[in-house]
Amino acid sequence: MVIHGPNLHLLGKRQPNIYGKVTLNELNKKLYQKATTNNIDIEIIQSNSESKIVDKITNTEYDFLIINPAAFTHTSVAIKDAILAVEKPTIEVHLSNIYKREDFRKHSVISDAVLGVISGFKEASYFLALDYAISCLKNL
Amino acid sequence: MVIHGPNLHLLGKRQPNIYGKVTLNELNKKLYQKATTNNIDIEIIQSNSESKIVDKITNTEYDFLIINPAAFTHTSVAIKDAILAVEKPTIEVHLSNIYKREDFRKHSVISDAVLGVISGFKEASYFLALDYAISCLKNL
Amino acid sequence: MVIHGPNLHLLGKRQPNIYGKVTLNELNKKLYQKATTNNIDIEIIQSNSESKIVDKITNTEYDFLIINPAAFTHTSVAIKDAILAVEKPTIEVHLSNIYKREDFRKHSVISDAVLGVISGFKEASYFLALDYAISCLKNL
Amino acid sequence: MVIHGPNLHLLGKRQPNIYGKVTLNELNKKLYQKATTNNIDIEIIQSNSESKIVDKITNTEYDFLIINPAAFTHTSVAIKDAILAVEKPTIEVHLSNIYKREDFRKHSVISDAVLGVISGFKEASYFLALDYAISCLKNL
Amino acid sequence: MVIHGPNLHLLGKRQPNIYGKVTLNELNKKLYQKATTNNIDIEIIQSNSESKIVDKITNTEYDFLIINPAAFTHTSVAIKDAILAVEKPTIEVHLSNIYKREDFRKHSVISDAVLGVISGFKEASYFLALDYAISCLKNL
Amino acid sequence: MVIHGPNLHLLGKRQPNIYGKVTLNELNKKLYQKATTNNIDIEIIQSNSESKIVDKITNTEYDFLIINPAAFTHTSVAIKDAILAVEKPTIEVHLSNIYKREDFRKHSVISDAVLGVISGFKEASYFLALDYAISCLKNL
Amino acid sequence: MVIHGPNLHLLGKRQPNIYGKVTLNELNKKLYQKATTNNIDIEIIQSNSESKIVDKITNTEYDFLIINPAAFTHTSVAIKDAILAVEKPTIEVHLSNIYKREDFRKHSVISDAVLGVISGFKEASYFLALDYAISCLKNL
Amino acid sequence: MVIHGPNLHLLGKRQPNIYGKVTLNELNKKLYQKATTNNIDIEIIQSNSESKIVDKITNTEYDFLIINPAAFTHTSVAIKDAILAVEKPTIEVHLSNIYKREDFRKHSVISDAVLGVISGFKEASYFLALDYAISCLKNL
Amino acid sequence: MVIHGPNLHLLGKRQPNIYGKVTLNELNKKLYQKATTNNIDIEIIQSNSESKIVDKITNTEYDFLIINPAAFTHTSVAIKDAILAVEKPTIEVHLSNIYKREDFRKHSVISDAVLGVISGFKEASYFLALDYAISCLKNL
Amino acid sequence: MVIHGPNLHLLGKRQPNIYGKVTLNELNKKLYQKATTNNIDIEIIQSNSESKIVDKITNTEYDFLIINPAAFTHTSVAIKDAILAVEKPTIEVHLSNIYKREDFRKHSVISDAVLGVISGFKEASYFLALDYAISCLKNL
Amino acid sequence: MVIHGPNLHLLGKRQPNIYGKVTLNELNKKLYQKATTNNIDIEIIQSNSESKIVDKITNTEYDFLIINPAAFTHTSVAIKDAILAVEKPTIEVHLSNIYKREDFRKHSVISDAVLGVISGFKEASYFLALDYAISCLKNL
Amino acid sequence: MVIHGPNLHLLGKRQPNIYGKVTLNELNKKLYQKATTNNIDIEIIQSNSESKIVDKITNTEYDFLIINPAAFTHTSVAIKDAILAVEKPTIEVHLSNIYKREDFRKHSVISDAVLGVISGFKEASYFLALDYAISCLKNL
Repeated sequence: MVIHGPNLHLLGKRQPNIYGKVTLNELNKKLYQKATTNNIDIEIIQSNSESKIVDKITNTEYDFLIINPAAFTHTSVAIKDAILAVEKPTIEVHLSNIYKREDFRKHSVISDAVLGVISGFKEASYFLALDYAISCLKNL
Repeated sequence: MVIHGPNLHLLGKRQPNIYGKVTLNELNKKLYQKATTNNIDIEIIQSNSESKIVDKITNTEYDFLIINPAAFTHTSVAIKDAILAVEKPTIEVHLSNIYKREDFRKHSVISDAVLGVISGFKEASYFLALDYAISCLKNL
Repeated sequence: MVIHGPNLHLLGKRQPNIYGKVTLNELNKKLYQKATTNNIDIEIIQSNSESKIVDKITNTEYDFLIINPAAFTHTSVAIKDAILAVEKPTIEVHLSNIYKREDFRKHSVISDAVLGVISGFKEASYFLALDYAISCLKNL
Repeated sequence: MVIHGPNLHLLGKRQPNIYGKVTLNELNKKLYQKATTNNIDIEIIQSNSESKIVDKITNTEYDFLIINPAAFTHTSVAIKDAILAVEKPTIEVHLSNIYKREDFRKHSVISDAVLGVISGFKEASYFLALDYAISCLKNL
Repeated sequence: MVIHGPNLHLLGKRQPNIYGKVTLNELNKKLYQKATTNNIDIEIIQSNSESKIVDKITNTEYDFLIINPAAFTHTSVAIKDAILAVEKPTIEVHLSNIYKREDFRKHSVISDAVLGVISGFKEASYFLALDYAISCLKNL
Repeated sequence: MVIHGPNLHLLGKRQPNIYGKVTLNELNKKLYQKATTNNIDIEIIQSNSESKIVDKITNTEYDFLIINPAAFTHTSVAIKDAILAVEKPTIEVHLSNIYKREDFRKHSVISDAVLGVISGFKEASYFLALDYAISCLKNL
Repeated sequence: MVIHGPNLHLLGKRQPNIYGKVTLNELNKKLYQKATTNNIDIEIIQSNSESKIVDKITNTEYDFLIINPAAFTHTSVAIKDAILAVEKPTIEVHLSNIYKREDFRKHSVISDAVLGVISGFKEASYFLALDYAISCLKNL
Repeated sequence: MVIHGPNLHLLGKRQPNIYGKVTLNELNKKLYQKATTNNIDIEIIQSNSESKIVDKITNTEYDFLIINPAAFTHTSVAIKDAILAVEKPTIEVHLSNIYKREDFRKHSVISDAVLGVISGFKEASYFLALDYAISCLKNL
Repeated sequence: MVIHGPNLHLLGKRQPNIYGKVTLNELNKKLYQKATTNNIDIEIIQSNSESKIVDKITNTEYDFLIINPAAFTHTSVAIKDAILAVEKPTIEVHLSNIYKREDFRKHSVISDAVLGVISGFKEASYFLALDYAISCLKNL
Repeated sequence: MVIHGPNLHLLGKRQPNIYGKVTLNELNKKLYQKATTNNIDIEIIQSNSESKIVDKITNTEYDFLIINPAAFTHTSVAIKDAILAVEKPTIEVHLSNIYKREDFRKHSVISDAVLGVISGFKEASYFLALDYAISCLKNL
Repeated sequence: MVIHGPNLHLLGKRQPNIYGKVTLNELNKKLYQKATTNNIDIEIIQSNSESKIVDKITNTEYDFLIINPAAFTHTSVAIKDAILAVEKPTIEVHLSNIYKREDFRKHSVISDAVLGVISGFKEASYFLALDYAISCLKNL
Repeated sequence: MVIHGPNLHLLGKRQPNIYGKVTLNELNKKLYQKATTNNIDIEIIQSNSESKIVDKITNTEYDFLIINPAAFTHTSVAIKDAILAVEKPTIEVHLSNIYKREDFRKHSVISDAVLGVISGFKEASYFLALDYAISCLKNL
């Protein structure tokens, strides 16, 4: 399962110097390809809605979660609680290096609920996370 | 009216050492029974959506509100403003004693908009609140 | 485009000493009239949902945005990011003078993403913003 | 055991808009009645002295403690340590909703040492606590 | 009455990317014109001196005050007290959006003493304020 | 009523460069003389016990209170609440200028519960307070 | 020497519930009378200008200074440095009890440069200070 | 002189993993033995009362003070002032390493009034302090 | 270039629940293998010395830096400045998820000087970083 | 241009252990001599008035500014804005090492608007600044 | 093992009013004597180098560590991590009472990693620690 | 003695817009020349090692120290203590104006241990310091 948070539907159009030029469609296509190549089922959603993300995390069956919480990184205790509740391995990814940006973007309320954090590698942040997820899933 | 906030649909499955083993269905059934026994109409909802909770608070007729804002306790000014706007007696309840938990869970943005707070008695928090509501409604 | 944030559907009924006695319908009617008189197309929405506001900001065509984020003023990084992403001229308006109110209402997470802020003139805050928008749109 | 903290001997005379009009004698009488009706032994004291409260908590036999620490809520580590030391179920009650008052009254040094907190229901705060205590004691 | 605070005599010469290219003389001329057109008496001063501004606010007859406190926005309790003392409707205006600038410029000690704040519209900030003042004065 | 707080029984012996050389006995004798000369009944106590001071404030009849809370200045919410409860005119006095001392001594939890504060005049602090009290009592 | 700070020329007209109803002229007349009665030369000024107050403090001959810094209480390091430089006994007086007011009014940058502080007795604050000054000057 | 602060009468019964298993009686017996062996007069008290501790410190003759202020470590300015007033060599001891515990327990208001601090050696903290005291007293 | 910071020579022996059971030798061997397989030259050092790490960063030729600053993460401005000075792509890695640990470990002074951060995947943190480095180096 | 801030007219008389024994006249004479020797026109003023300093900075022709803002170092945004507006090379000098003094004197609001800061060399602070200015002016 | 931190090679020469007059050589000689008398092997080093201290702690065999981290008390996470990693009983000693000194010296980053802290007894701090270590080692 | 701190061996290569284009060799050569011309012995070192700098400061004979602590400015209590211990006149210099840079670079832990600070004049910072040192040394 891969979840893209709010405003990521604009990926590739919005401030490309910060977030890169790849669009969300292109990114998702590559993620599907990589998953398929490795015989992994993958579901990808993007939502601007905190409640839909909480619903998805708590009401779906999956073995591994990769989430880019975007703006919710800094505000959503509900998503944090959802991750804590389902107790599935979860990776928080960010396109930009959030520690290099405005002060309020340096603090994530999600980070202490996840397995690990990958921040700053543009779309490669997702692929590093997917690599790790695949190697874990193969070891199951 | 009783409102359960985000992730409470998982009640009884999620970290039972913190939140208890009773499921939301079981809890709701007991709340209905108690209300019925006392000739009180009761409506109970659970939602992961801040906007649905705001809609419910501001667009429904009721005399008393019992709310467990869960994760929204710490973040939702919108719910606080809704409670302030309708000016109905409201009790904030928590299953766990929030003052015993992580620092960010100790602060409620809702508490100064409500009549009173009951925190830490597992599902009994709801029943103490309901007792109080019933005694108020009978005095109307 | 004019966006009214959460609980503003209660305008005119809710604490009128703070927010004024004009209802949202009356306010919207006057805004339409003024826009029409000036040959400006105007769309007005009110929503209690952060995600609907983000959707609206990022998925609609418009030249100018007037937004009263209400409770989201103090909490929504998602709306801020939406405004930053679309890069349209935007004015943040408030009915009350937010700097005169409780401490948590003095800080807006939105303000540094907008062109300007107008706060404290009750419904006139909207009309001053609309005046400015009209004069800009006429200069296009 | 019920302990009333400093200045509560003035109950009913002192700022009745905050603390209610019932006097301490009247309140205590009702607490005795309810306990007696339920076949529970109850001891009630009021003290302005932190050391007497610590003595009482640590040197008396009891199964359940209901305490309104009043001003000591915000300052007494000694009472907190006494509660922690005896490890008996304890409920912290407040007549007023302390989260609605001055900043210094919002923080309780006691809350993270107790089972739960009931705040804001005037004298009913004590009766809700007593209800809970009675139901626990009956389950012993 | 319109008061321009310290360093605004440099308007149009100083950092034009922040404050715009219109000079103070040009701005004042337009303000006089607008006032005259609306049959309003207007007095405009610029001063680098906190005490002269306090003298002006407290010793002059006027019905409405528009003030750009400039650097005094962040430091002058004396001007704030003067505004509070005379109890005349007052608008605080800023050429730049102060909430977008350095941290120390985000906080105004004046804002909670005025009717409303208009910030970020370059010289139009003054004209929006004047529009509002005129409409109020006509309603007297 | 004059109340001397903890450690003031050592007055005149303890750090005389801070607190002066007059002993508590000598000071009290002069206070009695002045009160007697003005036909005012005066009661003076010194106590190291917070609870005795609270008892005295809440259980004694008097028209005016002069209190040097000494160390309790910085810690005692119980004394503050006692002063608020009895609603008698009260002056807080200090021998030393507490604003000139260590940081923790600069903040008084008592000051916002009293009529006024006199700090820094050694034993004259008491006499200025007594002068004021006498002039008030004569106007009754 | 008595110095009245900014906005005190409005005394008696401005928020009389905070500052009292006596005008500055009436207050000054009484101060002259009391000084004259005690054979003390007295000079009294009021100024809205920080620099005039600094000039007065540093360039005038006097034995004792009574100053109500008003708004400069919270902002003026220059006045503080002037008081430190001349090393004359100085009393800071306030009409209102500044510790009972808004947070920013509770802190005085002047207090640790003076002999003592008298706050909260309306115009009597000045007379208590003058009493003390007279008794000191008589002991010279 | 050895003073044990509040709740230390429970020593050995209360959370033994933090405070050790030796009871207060056993500890005191050993302290007497060691003092006697070294021809030192020793007085030992335990009190839950801040005022009794202040009385003891200020009204007793002794050459050296060993104090475990327990909960008063974090709150009692009165005890600190008593220690400062009598100017006797004083050692602050703690059974547990207070710097390893909850945040509020890391700060001692007493420490900057004493000669030295010994923290974390269970009952040996007292014996190290007594060793030091004995060696000082022998050098008198 | 791979740099292991202070105490990492103990890897596999020290708190294995936090840092994993793989020793530094084993980890390094695997890193060499992966680099060799991909025809990349790799140099790996471990040092407890801030100055040696600064020397290495600034005086060696390399195209990519992977650094686990360990304890220096939280304290070393010198290493941060070295990374800024050489302007080579750099990844900060951590074995544990530092955002899940003690407060002081949550803040990295290094993070805003690097390209990206990978935290929480035990030794896999290094391999994800190496993957990314290899893919970058192949694109040169 | 050399500007001396408030209270510097007292130089040599005021706390000479902090500020040195040279009077302002003597210092100015030496500054004139050095400038004349180097064929540089120099203007020197001292003022206790923030507005006169702002006027001088913004309304005078000069190539280089040396300013000792004295008390205004810590409070004057107006002087800072004046320096920013004129964009002339400016050196901030202090007689004492301000980083060695009271906390509030350690922070300068001016420092980030100037070319450089020289602090702690008594009157030599001015001469080092003048040396630098002369060498710059000769290179024009 | 005894470790003396940076600048302690100057002991006895440097500010003797703070650190005492005994030189490091004299102190070490006495420590060797006491250890020898008790049949304990002792190794003593002094180093100004954080990395040498980390090396020593992690690469040497010993049963007990006494460390005066001196300046590293306040800054070295690396030494803290080394102590945590080796899990040997460790005592932190200070010559001066660090809680009596400048604010930055009151906080030790080491204290929550050690068994106990002894602060303020000049060189006796070491001997009390050694006494404790010897008694522990004899009980092995 | 002149000491250059960490990363200054890169001077002239590293971010020249901040630190200037002169290399360390060129700078040192000019410093030697100036010293030689004035018959002053000068020793210059650069080190990335905090311990070597502490060794140098405490184990070398010299009359005056000029130090650019670079990154250690913000972190090294050990260097501060070394400077305090040797009690030689010391000047802290910075190439850039540190008060204009990132927040963490504005605070120097060294500044309150030195005679004076010179910041912002690129390599001229050293020469102004050397000028001052020479004039002092000639006056010995």
